[in-house]
Amino acid sequence: MRVVVLNTGTELLLGDVHDAHLAFIAKEIFPLGLRIEERRTVPDGEAIRNALAELFSRAEILFVTGGLGPTTDDITREIIADVVGLKMRQDPQLLASLRRRLAARGIKWTSRIARQADVPAGAQILPNENGSASGLYLMANINPRTPSPHLFLLPGPPRELQPIFRASVMPILRSFVQVPASTERLYKIACMGESTVEEAIGEKVLAVPGIELGYCARPGEVDVRIIGKPDAVARAEAIIKSQLGPSIFSVTEEDLEEVIVKLLTARNETLAVAESCTGGLLANRITNVPGASNVFVAAYVCYANQAKIDMLDVDPKLIEKHGAVSEAVARGLAKHARTYARSTYALATTGIAGPTGGSREKPVGTIYVALAGPDETVVKRLFFPSDRETFKQLAAQAAFELLRRKLITGA
Amino acid sequence: MRVVVLNTGTELLLGDVHDAHLAFIAKEIFPLGLRIEERRTVPDGEAIRNALAELFSRAEILFVTGGLGPTTDDITREIIADVVGLKMRQDPQLLASLRRRLAARGIKWTSRIARQADVPAGAQILPNENGSASGLYLMANINPRTPSPHLFLLPGPPRELQPIFRASVMPILRSFVQVPASTERLYKIACMGESTVEEAIGEKVLAVPGIELGYCARPGEVDVRIIGKPDAVARAEAIIKSQLGPSIFSVTEEDLEEVIVKLLTARNETLAVAESCTGGLLANRITNVPGASNVFVAAYVCYANQAKIDMLDVDPKLIEKHGAVSEAVARGLAKHARTYARSTYALATTGIAGPTGGSREKPVGTIYVALAGPDETVVKRLFFPSDRETFKQLAAQAAFELLRRKLITGA
Repeated sequence: MRVVVLNTGTELLLGDVHDAHLAFIAKEIFPLGLRIEERRTVPDGEAIRNALAELFSRAEILFVTGGLGPTTDDITREIIADVVGLKMRQDPQLLASLRRRLAARGIKWTSRIARQADVPAGAQILPNENGSASGLYLMANINPRTPSPHLFLLPGPPRELQPIFRASVMPILRSFVQVPASTERLYKIACMGESTVEEAIGEKVLAVPGIELGYCARPGEVDVRIIGKPDAVARAEAIIKSQLGPSIFSVTEEDLEEVIVKLLTARNETLAVAESCTGGLLANRITNVPGASNVFVAAYVCYANQAKIDMLDVDPKLIEKHGAVSEAVARGLAKHARTYARSTYALATTGIAGPTGGSREKPVGTIYVALAGPDETVVKRLFFPSDRETFKQLAAQAAFELLRRKLITGA
Repeated sequence: MRVVVLNTGTELLLGDVHDAHLAFIAKEIFPLGLRIEERRTVPDGEAIRNALAELFSRAEILFVTGGLGPTTDDITREIIADVVGLKMRQDPQLLASLRRRLAARGIKWTSRIARQADVPAGAQILPNENGSASGLYLMANINPRTPSPHLFLLPGPPRELQPIFRASVMPILRSFVQVPASTERLYKIACMGESTVEEAIGEKVLAVPGIELGYCARPGEVDVRIIGKPDAVARAEAIIKSQLGPSIFSVTEEDLEEVIVKLLTARNETLAVAESCTGGLLANRITNVPGASNVFVAAYVCYANQAKIDMLDVDPKLIEKHGAVSEAVARGLAKHARTYARSTYALATTGIAGPTGGSREKPVGTIYVALAGPDETVVKRLFFPSDRETFKQLAAQAAFELLRRKLITGA
């Protein structure tokens, strides 16, 4: 069925409020086989009427958010009644529950608030436990003379909309939606470009009939998503796994740092990091993961050269001879961090984030990533010429991926 | 002028990626007197064509985001050319710059990537410093036989779109938009609740005729924005400055860490940090600022208790007696970090980020923030009961604000 979301609210278009409804509704209805085909955002007022006129012909299920409150710019109920050709009537039960709600809070009763008990005749009320504006459901073609989709009117605040959606909207949807057998899979890949990933799997996966394939790229990460009937998905998955295999770090929504905390926890091992150019990003990402304290010991953010010497006893002669951005220094940082923190592993980064500090031999974007473990220390030289924050993200992905590969292949 | 935003991308409608463009564009164009009248989100593919057909008649400026990458689902360029009635042609300069970009990164050249040099004839290229997909501008009615609005095609990743918008889109908009005589001011305030800020200035500022007043709250930060005629803005500014004075840390878009790097640089002073509960966030934010290396020495991210002892010689008896989350430990961390890093100042954090680890005396959300300077060490106990990442952000804001206040009032 064709699903459309209409967000109303001037504040959304001014950028003052971030819309959270699209992502929420998309994820809720996905298991029913429903996809949102279009979303519109329009200001409060008459723009809603124009949008409805266009959307009535193309939507089978229409979610309208916002504009159900007590203030003068909340006119969604009235516009809907008008467009569908229904009278407004006061709902005595709703009125009574509004009165109870306000009395319980010691708020004075006003005629503005009473407006919230006026609903299009025949609409089903979707109770709101967290606010005064109830949701409303108008079944498809509720007025036989005016074709209309299934209409759900929902209040704007997410903490009101979301409980109503789960408690009242989902059961109604289940009553008329035939849940199909299509399914979805996600594969997250680190440290590989989007075009490289597409070259590895694109043609082969798209050759499977009935498969939708999508990519989403972030710094140092590509998410691959396939959707289709179960047998098609199984065929596509076999292709993806044979092509990308160990490059896939997660098939759920996990980030690379979550995978690492989980792997280390399972192995009862620990991690320290020595960060120069990443400046604390590795530590910050790891410590965002609940349970990080079980595996993460410490970070030595030795930003200045002197700090490399003071914190981790890097030999000043090494820095003098090879520079702070060098294989020798990266190796020393990782080895010493591991020793001093008494951790199973240590990662180290040293590089040139820019915008200044580059040379011909080591241009801005040059980085060494090192991993010290119980048996050996490995160092990789990489090159990420980009803005400062992206450089740090790419470097963090490279370091985490180096460790993850070690953890999944090591003994 | 009527402004419309068209977001393209199946991942947006699946709820996998959060759209950040609407809010960004709204805020950027606001000073030009432009407001977004409508936003649509449609999937990749032919839905873009249908949306364009409808929007061409109602938009005077149309921003289209996404679909400019190298993969097969990136067909925005081709659809636009088709709808406007323009031929696609390869841009030799763009091709050359793509080749240089890939060569510099050691990425293999493929015909897929070359597609990104194909542009609708007559389109102006908006250079992308942070990705391979350039933005494009097609002036209104570029093909006299097909009426079309001013068209801006922009890449989907925010870190690519935003610099292009500021560097290339804004100058083009300024060339044909008549900017109204109203002006705008921004005041950024740290560590004060939105309602506290509103109580301090709200009524007084709104009493100035012709002033629009807006708030935007983030963890540990409130942005106040006023818009109006210059004389009204001057009156409102006088009120805001007298009420909030030193609480205002910036009147530009600077973050707190940028202000700190600037203040320290001007004073020729340096900073180290000792982080327990913030886990590297302070260091990460500071090192995101270009020029941080002039003032930032090192971070001791002593996450485990043993690391506090090993890295910064915290007396184990102090931890045993008062707990790691205590005034005594916070003080020790800050003092020792300052001594060991030989920096002018050191900040320290120790707290309980949760979700576990709280007690009745020190519930989840309890934190001590310390600042050691040349003359004294101060410690503050604070309480931020919230989710883990918000807790870290609030703690970082509190620590930075403690230092900023010292720097602006100290000798």
